[in-house]
Amino acid sequence: MFSLAFGVGTKNSDGAWLEIYYPRPLLHPDQSIVDHLSTILDYPEGNYVIDLNDDMIDKLGEITEFEGIVELKESSKPVVLTLLERDSSPKSIPEAYLKLHLLSHRLVKPNTLNLEGIFGILPNVAWTDIGAVDPKELGILQLKARAAGRVLEVSSVDKFPKMTNYVVPSGVRIAHSARVRLGAYLGEGTTVMHEGFVNFNAGALGPNMVEGRISQGVIIKSGTDLGGSASTAGTLSGGGNTLISIGQDCLISANAGTGIPLGDRCTIEAGLYITPGTIVQLIDEHKNKLGIVKARDLAGQSDMLFIRNSQSGIVECRSNLKAIELNEMLHTNN
Amino acid sequence: MFSLAFGVGTKNSDGAWLEIYYPRPLLHPDQSIVDHLSTILDYPEGNYVIDLNDDMIDKLGEITEFEGIVELKESSKPVVLTLLERDSSPKSIPEAYLKLHLLSHRLVKPNTLNLEGIFGILPNVAWTDIGAVDPKELGILQLKARAAGRVLEVSSVDKFPKMTNYVVPSGVRIAHSARVRLGAYLGEGTTVMHEGFVNFNAGALGPNMVEGRISQGVIIKSGTDLGGSASTAGTLSGGGNTLISIGQDCLISANAGTGIPLGDRCTIEAGLYITPGTIVQLIDEHKNKLGIVKARDLAGQSDMLFIRNSQSGIVECRSNLKAIELNEMLHTNN
Amino acid sequence: MFSLAFGVGTKNSDGAWLEIYYPRPLLHPDQSIVDHLSTILDYPEGNYVIDLNDDMIDKLGEITEFEGIVELKESSKPVVLTLLERDSSPKSIPEAYLKLHLLSHRLVKPNTLNLEGIFGILPNVAWTDIGAVDPKELGILQLKARAAGRVLEVSSVDKFPKMTNYVVPSGVRIAHSARVRLGAYLGEGTTVMHEGFVNFNAGALGPNMVEGRISQGVIIKSGTDLGGSASTAGTLSGGGNTLISIGQDCLISANAGTGIPLGDRCTIEAGLYITPGTIVQLIDEHKNKLGIVKARDLAGQSDMLFIRNSQSGIVECRSNLKAIELNEMLHTNN
Repeated sequence: MFSLAFGVGTKNSDGAWLEIYYPRPLLHPDQSIVDHLSTILDYPEGNYVIDLNDDMIDKLGEITEFEGIVELKESSKPVVLTLLERDSSPKSIPEAYLKLHLLSHRLVKPNTLNLEGIFGILPNVAWTDIGAVDPKELGILQLKARAAGRVLEVSSVDKFPKMTNYVVPSGVRIAHSARVRLGAYLGEGTTVMHEGFVNFNAGALGPNMVEGRISQGVIIKSGTDLGGSASTAGTLSGGGNTLISIGQDCLISANAGTGIPLGDRCTIEAGLYITPGTIVQLIDEHKNKLGIVKARDLAGQSDMLFIRNSQSGIVECRSNLKAIELNEMLHTNN
Repeated sequence: MFSLAFGVGTKNSDGAWLEIYYPRPLLHPDQSIVDHLSTILDYPEGNYVIDLNDDMIDKLGEITEFEGIVELKESSKPVVLTLLERDSSPKSIPEAYLKLHLLSHRLVKPNTLNLEGIFGILPNVAWTDIGAVDPKELGILQLKARAAGRVLEVSSVDKFPKMTNYVVPSGVRIAHSARVRLGAYLGEGTTVMHEGFVNFNAGALGPNMVEGRISQGVIIKSGTDLGGSASTAGTLSGGGNTLISIGQDCLISANAGTGIPLGDRCTIEAGLYITPGTIVQLIDEHKNKLGIVKARDLAGQSDMLFIRNSQSGIVECRSNLKAIELNEMLHTNN
Repeated sequence: MFSLAFGVGTKNSDGAWLEIYYPRPLLHPDQSIVDHLSTILDYPEGNYVIDLNDDMIDKLGEITEFEGIVELKESSKPVVLTLLERDSSPKSIPEAYLKLHLLSHRLVKPNTLNLEGIFGILPNVAWTDIGAVDPKELGILQLKARAAGRVLEVSSVDKFPKMTNYVVPSGVRIAHSARVRLGAYLGEGTTVMHEGFVNFNAGALGPNMVEGRISQGVIIKSGTDLGGSASTAGTLSGGGNTLISIGQDCLISANAGTGIPLGDRCTIEAGLYITPGTIVQLIDEHKNKLGIVKARDLAGQSDMLFIRNSQSGIVECRSNLKAIELNEMLHTNN
């Protein structure tokens, strides 16, 4: 069994799923749990979603790993058990949501799950102060709310909800939660400032300072600081095909960006964007010019300092003699 | 008759309008509707706002185009009919709000309405979880909420509300709704990501990927991708006097920007900002240098690729041989 | 007496403070008020927090400066009086919160308070639609809310709350309040657009247009326009050690940034980031080249225009002949 979880979710008026919340997903659950389940409910095999009644909930509540499930007995919303025998491409909304939860609960790292076709599976949802609403059913609800003297607050219309309404991992700060999607991975000690952004299946292994944008598929490793509005080129839209990752103790300064993966202890100066096609002058620690290369040929290397020479306009890659250290004060006591 | 709409709104304690919600505005309504109205209520002529009582609401409810109005009979807030005989500069808050609704309902395109003086007409409003509040009346409400153990959530203090609390057009995704003002125009198939922003009287004709900022008056045409933090120079503040528009199938890459209008199939590389005064080296597809021009002289032309040569620091405009295609997966099923 | 204020706040289930709201903080209160206080309650001396009972609240309510306090008599949350005899480094959460209020109420300017060690004092808090919650106590509340058919909205997990839920100073617009922390200083006539950001102990003296990021410790003076995504280098994370300030009537254009303090009437062109180490060609108003300097040597000077020559890639500092003027329309009637 790859994963299983109990959850509670929302359906539209046609009975189609809009979203599911899994408070305690399990990865590779013990076979004894799976065996116990088969005494409580009928599980055929494969990836499956089972509606739970109060009797089942009571029995599941006796299993340690299902702690809290009895809270859901009174729920007016559908309560389910989702089982993923294998990590195959998600075929249903409950499957897709379970995978996003696995990432945000830090049970799996980005780029290790099969998420093929997830955009086609996930429905577009209006995220409101009365919960998830099908956009097609929104108009009349807005009118009724106004008639009652209220405003129906629509904070997002998107296939992905904000992470913090589902998962708040330990030891993080997220200054503005609208910018972290469910499916983001935020390691212990990570601070995402107001300008930071983390897409699904992407993240920071922690501790990290994130004031820039972590695109889908991008990982930044411990000690790395992504400055304000710093960009990591994505592969979904506008960017290229190379998945970006950034190693440890790097500093991508404010308004800078990278379209190539970087190793450890790299720095990109403020305002400079390195694209794969940028032609770069290599300079050693004795200031000798070693020739030019395309930035893509430097992909994944460590100890690089990128600047644009302000006397010549030439983009240079120097040996990075001064790696950064995170300000410990900003990451302890998260 | 230019436009008419029924609405429900909020006034401050002095009886001054703060905002109005028009669920179903009409552009160029049929004369038969206007004639019918005159049998129900007293409409002198010109641009006019009429308070509606329950009897009027019942009679209006019999007109197809006023579907839903009867929901407002029980409203404790003022219900009105706003009529704009002509598209003259807005003279009242209900007029200004109706025009913003016309844009967001896609009934008119940006830059086609008379919005002269709208900043002076619109009041500043505290947008809270109990609705629109006059900033002058906010302090005591905040204190009372605290005394009652609650926090009065103030999500914005601005002349423009967020669009999604008034209009959610079909076929769009808006990952973070606080960044799209009422009066934005979002065409079918448009996705506004978390870093995207769309001002009033501005927009994307759709389908589009918007991860950058669409300033007041700016339009981007179908197939164009505005990358993360990409900037379109505005005319209200800090920018110049030229209204920017961007044609079809352009890519303004992450952290780039433009201060000139662009035609179709143009690309600006990541991190490069083209201002009207930027001196640009023209280069043809055979890499011949054709001379230099100011960027403003290239305004509105198509098939341009702008880069800063990383070996010389010179800004170049090359023939764009590789126009972008939007990732269809991200825009279908919106 | 340096400062005193009555407030109402939230504690976690262990009785530790999470946050305090002070509706009317006093700076340098009249000695007569302090004398009067000693007849009502027992104040030993030093910096002190006193729990108030209903009797004390009634008596304090008779003092003009404590107007509104009687509203808090019914409060189920703890009501306190916080007294700061001296502006020493904050030693408790109520002290730290009072200092943040002093800044946002414009009673003190940024960089004039002793805030040493404030990161260590302030607890991390989940800011939700049911108020401040200890992150350790969040999980079970989220589950219970879901069981009840609701979503517990977690808008931020941070040491600093948004300013507008505590203080909305007069004459400002804040298009998106999640981006202004308590402790920000916003002068009269300031507009913070959606892309603007203001950290604690930082701000705009007003009137100003803020579409970029004002880092901790940074001040911008009247008439200055900080363009979209413009960056001011901070000292907490990623930046250097020099505190940035920007004088009057400057324009830091969109996607630009500065790592040096600037005097009055300076302009940085769109997309250009000036770091302290940037080597700059000085050019006078007759276009004579005056030699090169490091940008840090220009710190605090006035009438500078920074551009990157698009024909040579050289960063130039020219005499700024055309200082900006704010668009008055955008700042009146705030």
